[in-house]
Amino acid sequence: MDFEPSPRVQQLQQQLNRFMKEHIYPNEQVFKEQVAQQRWTAPPILETLKEAARAQGLWNLFMPGHEHGGCGLSNADYAPLAEIMGRVFWAAEVFNCSAPDTGNMEVFARYGSAEQQARWLQPLLRGEIRSAYAMTEPGVASSDATNVELSIRADGDSYVINGRKWFATGAMNEACKIFIVMGKTDPDHPNRHLQQSQVLVERDRPGLTIVRPLSTMGYWEEPSGHAELRFDNVRIPKSNMLLGEGRGFEIAQGRLGPGRIHHCMRVIGAAQRALELACQRVNSRVAFGKKLSEQGSVRESVALMASKIEMCRLLTLRAADKMDRVGNKQAMDLIAMAKIMVPQLGSEVIDMAIQMHGAGGLTKDYFLAEAFNYARWCRLADGPDQVHMMALGKQVIRELSA
Amino acid sequence: MDFEPSPRVQQLQQQLNRFMKEHIYPNEQVFKEQVAQQRWTAPPILETLKEAARAQGLWNLFMPGHEHGGCGLSNADYAPLAEIMGRVFWAAEVFNCSAPDTGNMEVFARYGSAEQQARWLQPLLRGEIRSAYAMTEPGVASSDATNVELSIRADGDSYVINGRKWFATGAMNEACKIFIVMGKTDPDHPNRHLQQSQVLVERDRPGLTIVRPLSTMGYWEEPSGHAELRFDNVRIPKSNMLLGEGRGFEIAQGRLGPGRIHHCMRVIGAAQRALELACQRVNSRVAFGKKLSEQGSVRESVALMASKIEMCRLLTLRAADKMDRVGNKQAMDLIAMAKIMVPQLGSEVIDMAIQMHGAGGLTKDYFLAEAFNYARWCRLADGPDQVHMMALGKQVIRELSA
Amino acid sequence: MDFEPSPRVQQLQQQLNRFMKEHIYPNEQVFKEQVAQQRWTAPPILETLKEAARAQGLWNLFMPGHEHGGCGLSNADYAPLAEIMGRVFWAAEVFNCSAPDTGNMEVFARYGSAEQQARWLQPLLRGEIRSAYAMTEPGVASSDATNVELSIRADGDSYVINGRKWFATGAMNEACKIFIVMGKTDPDHPNRHLQQSQVLVERDRPGLTIVRPLSTMGYWEEPSGHAELRFDNVRIPKSNMLLGEGRGFEIAQGRLGPGRIHHCMRVIGAAQRALELACQRVNSRVAFGKKLSEQGSVRESVALMASKIEMCRLLTLRAADKMDRVGNKQAMDLIAMAKIMVPQLGSEVIDMAIQMHGAGGLTKDYFLAEAFNYARWCRLADGPDQVHMMALGKQVIRELSA
Amino acid sequence: MDFEPSPRVQQLQQQLNRFMKEHIYPNEQVFKEQVAQQRWTAPPILETLKEAARAQGLWNLFMPGHEHGGCGLSNADYAPLAEIMGRVFWAAEVFNCSAPDTGNMEVFARYGSAEQQARWLQPLLRGEIRSAYAMTEPGVASSDATNVELSIRADGDSYVINGRKWFATGAMNEACKIFIVMGKTDPDHPNRHLQQSQVLVERDRPGLTIVRPLSTMGYWEEPSGHAELRFDNVRIPKSNMLLGEGRGFEIAQGRLGPGRIHHCMRVIGAAQRALELACQRVNSRVAFGKKLSEQGSVRESVALMASKIEMCRLLTLRAADKMDRVGNKQAMDLIAMAKIMVPQLGSEVIDMAIQMHGAGGLTKDYFLAEAFNYARWCRLADGPDQVHMMALGKQVIRELSA
Repeated sequence: MDFEPSPRVQQLQQQLNRFMKEHIYPNEQVFKEQVAQQRWTAPPILETLKEAARAQGLWNLFMPGHEHGGCGLSNADYAPLAEIMGRVFWAAEVFNCSAPDTGNMEVFARYGSAEQQARWLQPLLRGEIRSAYAMTEPGVASSDATNVELSIRADGDSYVINGRKWFATGAMNEACKIFIVMGKTDPDHPNRHLQQSQVLVERDRPGLTIVRPLSTMGYWEEPSGHAELRFDNVRIPKSNMLLGEGRGFEIAQGRLGPGRIHHCMRVIGAAQRALELACQRVNSRVAFGKKLSEQGSVRESVALMASKIEMCRLLTLRAADKMDRVGNKQAMDLIAMAKIMVPQLGSEVIDMAIQMHGAGGLTKDYFLAEAFNYARWCRLADGPDQVHMMALGKQVIRELSA
Repeated sequence: MDFEPSPRVQQLQQQLNRFMKEHIYPNEQVFKEQVAQQRWTAPPILETLKEAARAQGLWNLFMPGHEHGGCGLSNADYAPLAEIMGRVFWAAEVFNCSAPDTGNMEVFARYGSAEQQARWLQPLLRGEIRSAYAMTEPGVASSDATNVELSIRADGDSYVINGRKWFATGAMNEACKIFIVMGKTDPDHPNRHLQQSQVLVERDRPGLTIVRPLSTMGYWEEPSGHAELRFDNVRIPKSNMLLGEGRGFEIAQGRLGPGRIHHCMRVIGAAQRALELACQRVNSRVAFGKKLSEQGSVRESVALMASKIEMCRLLTLRAADKMDRVGNKQAMDLIAMAKIMVPQLGSEVIDMAIQMHGAGGLTKDYFLAEAFNYARWCRLADGPDQVHMMALGKQVIRELSA
Repeated sequence: MDFEPSPRVQQLQQQLNRFMKEHIYPNEQVFKEQVAQQRWTAPPILETLKEAARAQGLWNLFMPGHEHGGCGLSNADYAPLAEIMGRVFWAAEVFNCSAPDTGNMEVFARYGSAEQQARWLQPLLRGEIRSAYAMTEPGVASSDATNVELSIRADGDSYVINGRKWFATGAMNEACKIFIVMGKTDPDHPNRHLQQSQVLVERDRPGLTIVRPLSTMGYWEEPSGHAELRFDNVRIPKSNMLLGEGRGFEIAQGRLGPGRIHHCMRVIGAAQRALELACQRVNSRVAFGKKLSEQGSVRESVALMASKIEMCRLLTLRAADKMDRVGNKQAMDLIAMAKIMVPQLGSEVIDMAIQMHGAGGLTKDYFLAEAFNYARWCRLADGPDQVHMMALGKQVIRELSA
Repeated sequence: MDFEPSPRVQQLQQQLNRFMKEHIYPNEQVFKEQVAQQRWTAPPILETLKEAARAQGLWNLFMPGHEHGGCGLSNADYAPLAEIMGRVFWAAEVFNCSAPDTGNMEVFARYGSAEQQARWLQPLLRGEIRSAYAMTEPGVASSDATNVELSIRADGDSYVINGRKWFATGAMNEACKIFIVMGKTDPDHPNRHLQQSQVLVERDRPGLTIVRPLSTMGYWEEPSGHAELRFDNVRIPKSNMLLGEGRGFEIAQGRLGPGRIHHCMRVIGAAQRALELACQRVNSRVAFGKKLSEQGSVRESVALMASKIEMCRLLTLRAADKMDRVGNKQAMDLIAMAKIMVPQLGSEVIDMAIQMHGAGGLTKDYFLAEAFNYARWCRLADGPDQVHMMALGKQVIRELSA
């Protein structure tokens, strides 16, 4: 048994922490000001920092293995690194490790044709373009993939797409050039898991409208954003099909594991930073004649915050480790546990940190409200908690009642 | 024992509900569009609706007694009416019942000189101007009033004010013409509760800068907003003193009871509406082959939501009733209970409703995220929960350990 | 609106509190010692106190209306009185107000024939005998009444009963002379709610075995106890049928409302006493140089405890009031809310009081662990919380999604 | 990073699981019956099983290192083994791994003189006698060791002891021959942590009275029990002093780490078994036309139970691992985290399992209520949660606000 990161990972942690200190934290305000100028364009500071990170080899750390730009880190190796990136909402992109591009790159790497990889995976790995994943629909409970209604109809050498999507994260960004779109090619197939396909739609295809950005808890998350999309007779060539007709559900299953666990890692980083800010805050404020940090209830709260974070960290690490050992599919139980517990406990920790900051904690002067928003929407990303609990509960009962 | 509202209140409930249905809900989108045009000016629709409400006598319902525009309702009478108003974030103002003006009007009514009442209370009661209350400071834990640092220095016939405030709710609105400002006239007074005074500062006084609006959980709450203020040698006449030098703490104590309980009433309305939306939602969505409303875990959640709301409603009513019977000060224990429990439980209910709406629940398409923001910041308004718990716990121990 | 008890109820509260102080609290130890001698016989002190209470008119206060020994109190009148009784686990019986006899007396009063009332209701009202209600079965989920398996087979002028029951509360007591037993007379009836009947079985019927007492959380609750029963060809006359064949489900529905709400009232009394003990405790202990009562986290806990109790009290009162106004059936939603929330919140309050007592709080030196046991098993009595949540959630969704 | 136990530990897990299946579970009822005969004597079955376990080398697994009977397992190695033992309340003793003997053996091993080790440690390691640790006093908040009032007065070659203790776990057992007793030898020492000493008191010393057993949540935990003790002029030779006068606090600090973490390990085993029983239960019961295991709310509950257990397991393992790497004292933060979270979350899991068992879950027919009692009292053993939270919070603030 060994909980310590490998020497290489420890070295990367130090390097990342130094990069954060030198380049990211000092530019948080600059980032805000630049996106205030141009909401849906990557701010210049982001591009500058990407170059710096890439030059240091802090690039594509998320990609397992050695192919496709991977630098040979396992998921468990990546966890403490992603945690550091999670301390600033937009930092992961600096290292080309941001959602949904990481998940999309994995899709291209696993399921893309050589041509598709050349056309889309390569520029993504270089950080030149961004991508989006359009799965959720406003009209149906999309966590049940069989509900998906968007139509992908074959027509000669083309497919014709009609329907609506929303919460296509990243799609507002002008640099987002390619959308992976889930829809139904065969809505009447008797096997409900073979009705779906995933296709590639370029941003500039006629008939594709980026309707509007969507806020979450009041946040717009510029420049990536969450977009609503409309597809009106959007025509794409058949070569834009991923993997093959009827395999959309299979791709969706394969994609979700790493995405979920990456969110968990970053939420932990956000919660840890919230705890650090809270500790500094309570150590500097006086109320009713005593420093807040000397008051019993504050100490109890801090103890619970630290304990919850540590439990989240260990659970996420354990899930990542199981993915590394037995594969994403076999690790679904632990991925589900992390997905259920980490955003929930992370929200609680951040909420406590807000409370310790008084009204200021609610504002954009601190990163707390934004961090809360992130942890909160993670409870809905990739399906609401309840869906994961149902699946996990079913599996646990099956195994333990045998 | 009788839990039912009086016939008069029941009639007002019906009238208010009808007004909401005919005038408020249909204009929620209009309101959004108009404030998007001019953020810090009351949108025309608001003024139109105010006239309509006033014409129907749905006006100043909050004011206890019959003087000062009061229509003779008790706090307990007002509770179910304020709950209805709480169903739309900006609705209370339509009936001239919005914070912080209600609390400020009570301050003028109780503590204002005849001249101050003529100058400020009358136009406030007519809804012609708005007001703000500047108590919280960015640099200190302001829930402990003895921490307040803003200086009010006597200088001849004037006072000269220097310092900073923030979270002056409503102060962004151009119609906000008068600020009630808490500061220290005698910072060295041996009795720490006699150091403070409250003075009136007109919006256009030289040296008063409205620095910026502050968001809470990503929301700006236009057109009222929460403002940061700077006072640089702001000079006011001595007649702008409220009640007398050294009586600022006393005014603060007297002001806070009704304000707190009004927030609770409106949070209950917001939570009730969230529950209704959730019920409609789960009854219209299908996942995994079954309506959400037929799934056991959804039913359990709804049962808890409804139970929590009912408990909040009763607790708030009980506090209001105690205020009516024995006065605000004697009712401090029940006011504190409501202040502690209602925003917390209300947040939980709204959070569950968001979860039942999927990602859409996080957006501005529904009122849920905004309602969550309201319940959340109520946990900090008038001091963080912890301050009220400390005071209540102290009192309960004293009474029960005797 | 009026939250205050009527003058008559206030007078009864004073009288009851005095009785508790003079007769009950001083005999808690005596009671323990006497039941330690003879576990399943009412201890002499209980009989002595019953006489004293009856002499004061503190008798059968639970019975609504004026018939059948009722003294004209409504359910809402009774709530604050039952709360006082709940402060000592066995006190309700002193006033002939203990479960399950109260519910059983209501069953006899509502559904019993004149002969059955004369034979059983009269001595129960006089406190001369005790009764039990045998519904739950060890082999099936009995909260779903259609699962009941005990067989009641007609055979000439008799019924013959076979089957098992458990958690027949009170049945261990030798004074318990009559059992109301739920079973199936027509297990094949197409309407699953007409299969059941309820019959009367005298304690001494051949074939009825009182198998053993059952503990809950380590407590045996002598002398009443929870019994397991076996029925082997127990023969009873047809006149022992209650109301009529096939009407067992109907009786069960009618019985449960008051029983549930009485438990809530008493749990509130137990929680309130726990809070009082906790306040006295923290005010007398010193740790780390300070009285516990001066520590912030203790004050916060006490504030939450007091707030939860007050919410429970109001919810229970509200449910009782609705029963009084519109009947038990129409009040099912509020009864369910109270049944769900009160034992849960009561458990939390008592658990906190235990924690404040240190290890001693777990022992029988204090009433806390026993009180926890009571609140805990109330979460299962009359069906687990989950069953009530499901029913309530279903009703709320139906009403609010219309 | 590596979460998997070593091959040797995996082999021990298999061996222990087999032993549990073959020897422990089949004898749970036998054990109950035998202790019912003779409450405070080790039942014969226990002695039989101890021999069997020892013969298999499943003995003293808890002892770190190779000296003093240790078989070379680290704390992290021991964690999954102790978890298995925790599945039956009395099982740890079969393997000579039960509290408080484990902690006491460590005290003898670390702090005992050669003579003390020969006299007491050896028979303890052979399982021939039992021991108790007398620290808690009924009259003071004993989690603050400076409150201890028991007097140890030097008198010639002897010490004379006067005072009271309670919650001396294991002291009821007749096999318990030696008590380690904390008291004050120098109550006026200016350094409040040098006032205390720990001495050895043999069971048969005149003046030592074992006053009575104490129950926790209704459980007596025969044959070990929790005892109240009275010391009336108990005279012991000076050679019964441990380590030296004034070093009692130092010993207490050194003893508590492993004891706390062992409790956590066993609570996890109890919670895991509760989850398994719950899964089997819900898979075999039908309510409202469907197996419980197919109901959404049950699945959600099971998912939460499994997730909480996994988090507890990882946190405990992490704490054990830190103890192994940097020593008990440096690992105090993680030990505190485990001590705070595991009994709390374990209680929640077991409580849910009880609820899924219906009323039966409260009885002694299942191990659930007893398991709840164990998890519950662990929240008070070695000081209430609050004391650990205070210390941990203080440390975290100091580290993170630096």
